[in-house]
Amino acid sequence: MLRLHHHPMSAACRFLRLVMTEYGERFELVDERPWERSKELLALNLAGTVPVLVEDNGPPIVGGMVAAEYLDETRGVFQRDRRLLAEKPFERAEIRRLTDWFLGKMEGEVTRYLVRERVFKREMTAAEGGGAPDSSAMRAARANLKNHVRYIGWLSESRNWLAGSHLSYADLSAAAAISVLDYLGEVRWEDDPVAKDWYMRIKSRPSFRPFLQERIRGIPPAAHYGELDF
Amino acid sequence: MLRLHHHPMSAACRFLRLVMTEYGERFELVDERPWERSKELLALNLAGTVPVLVEDNGPPIVGGMVAAEYLDETRGVFQRDRRLLAEKPFERAEIRRLTDWFLGKMEGEVTRYLVRERVFKREMTAAEGGGAPDSSAMRAARANLKNHVRYIGWLSESRNWLAGSHLSYADLSAAAAISVLDYLGEVRWEDDPVAKDWYMRIKSRPSFRPFLQERIRGIPPAAHYGELDF
Repeated sequence: MLRLHHHPMSAACRFLRLVMTEYGERFELVDERPWERSKELLALNLAGTVPVLVEDNGPPIVGGMVAAEYLDETRGVFQRDRRLLAEKPFERAEIRRLTDWFLGKMEGEVTRYLVRERVFKREMTAAEGGGAPDSSAMRAARANLKNHVRYIGWLSESRNWLAGSHLSYADLSAAAAISVLDYLGEVRWEDDPVAKDWYMRIKSRPSFRPFLQERIRGIPPAAHYGELDF
Repeated sequence: MLRLHHHPMSAACRFLRLVMTEYGERFELVDERPWERSKELLALNLAGTVPVLVEDNGPPIVGGMVAAEYLDETRGVFQRDRRLLAEKPFERAEIRRLTDWFLGKMEGEVTRYLVRERVFKREMTAAEGGGAPDSSAMRAARANLKNHVRYIGWLSESRNWLAGSHLSYADLSAAAAISVLDYLGEVRWEDDPVAKDWYMRIKSRPSFRPFLQERIRGIPPAAHYGELDF
């Protein structure tokens, strides 16, 4: 059995949930509050971050891409046409580049800030860094977000899916990050109809359904968040 | 033929040079100055960062771990005992966790700041962000470095090499980052004899020799930098 230590508003955690569901895997979710730096989470991951994936009481598998590589090696390799990390080294490199783009670069420039300021800070004590949102951090993140949405639009216009002709980790990592930001009403879809079309295709997949039903305490989602046609 | 677009003081670039040399590969090096955001580099990698690996005019392979995965798929898989990414999924996950620790977490907390403040800023124009080093950024990075050296010591005390009984990407990524910082005289070896012993073992490998001879214009290395017994 797979167990994912996660936070519902972490892009990398949503990414792994999508991957496992696309592969038909059942898994347990354990909610974590990484800012509390609990002993239990630090024992699994000294960095104190989520996601951490555990299979059958095996050693913890730490990090979004690291766990996705593990799932490729233990599941993806048997999926043939439905494999989410391609077969050929050059294609795998392009999928990994984009996955790192969305879970690394976009996370560091956009997602981390908006989630921290708008979601985590509400739950944090003053000692943990809680308090009023930092509006200059949010402004910078919002400016960066436009570029990332434009890049998604550009990729999905030049290819069928973001990394090529097949659905891959690139799409699921991008959609995971976008879904977190869309919950918060941060994505201006009217600016980019091509990116919106790509997101509608992902959003209508059965693997996406659980996200559309989840609610964060005290933060209602944007009005269109749950709509497949928005 | 492999061609690496790199900067000599980038940890991820040094890591790939170590991997390729350990595998007996010949490669060309192309010096880049990422802060200039040249059209040529942006055409290879829209993020404007190094490393970028190119093989035989194939598509660019972007990023340290992405290129290391490519090298594992095209070279490592044939190396048997000398493979740097193990065979079993759990062992591969641990090697990847640590590689991400040294090229991601340590880079973001230590290496990036010290290299930027002490090396890149000397070459940057004012418009590119050049100027006097920011001493508070350097102070924070130095405090974080102690923890990373201690972690290396702890790992190499409990295991033979950082991720287990074999030399792996974990050792080469850690050594790449440490070698950059050691050039700058930032590592206080007297604090951690176990980490020092591990680094002496790595430093004496033939793959390490080119680094010990390289010099950065205007910045002489720490006195012990080139010594195998320091």
